[in-house]
Amino acid sequence: MNLNELKFDANGLIPVVTQDARTGAVLMQAFADAAAVQRTLETRQATYYSRSRQGQWVKGATSGHTQRVLSVTADCDGDSLLYRVEQTGPACHTGAYSCFHQPLLANETEAEGQGGLDGTLERVYATI
Amino acid sequence: MNLNELKFDANGLIPVVTQDARTGAVLMQAFADAAAVQRTLETRQATYYSRSRQGQWVKGATSGHTQRVLSVTADCDGDSLLYRVEQTGPACHTGAYSCFHQPLLANETEAEGQGGLDGTLERVYATI
Repeated sequence: MNLNELKFDANGLIPVVTQDARTGAVLMQAFADAAAVQRTLETRQATYYSRSRQGQWVKGATSGHTQRVLSVTADCDGDSLLYRVEQTGPACHTGAYSCFHQPLLANETEAEGQGGLDGTLERVYATI
Repeated sequence: MNLNELKFDANGLIPVVTQDARTGAVLMQAFADAAAVQRTLETRQATYYSRSRQGQWVKGATSGHTQRVLSVTADCDGDSLLYRVEQTGPACHTGAYSCFHQPLLANETEAEGQGGLDGTLERVYATI
């Protein structure tokens, strides 16, 4: 798949999920326009489109909390992207490691260490 | 944070990132309306809003490939959700484990087994 095959929404944007390649944690979800995706592919610096600032947003350009992009993957229908990154510093502007830190529904049965999969399957999947 | 504090877009939708709680893999990205989020919170069955079918979509209702929701977390500004799930069968309608399987930019330096973190930090983070 290439940039031209991606499906952007009515505003010319595509959702981007950003994952810490080292830990597997989902760090943030943002949007990108075609130019931001292209810049990401060319520079390996995670780049988005800021809806509030209405402009291109190179993550960490101000804060220094940049994201080096190891891979970019589209989903099955080409309307969503996954950036796997090496995160420098916290991903969240609040200083939190991940932007996802406000629980609506807490863990009920999520057991630690169950099955010992521990991201292994994910790495195998990322390799094949 | 609760349902009333979430920020839905002009179409009444919020992006949802769905992650396999066992492996850390990002399985899919979809959208939910308030009713779908509420149903997810009440039933722990991952529920979305299908933009193509314009209706509520209980994942796996037809295919049997359901997602039991272990936790729901909002991001810092309440305009994106993370469902951590136990996935039954493949997440993707193509039969792939994850919907994210179309590379635009391949791994350059992502090393297998580097540092042995293997999702451990992510689980620690999810716990604290």
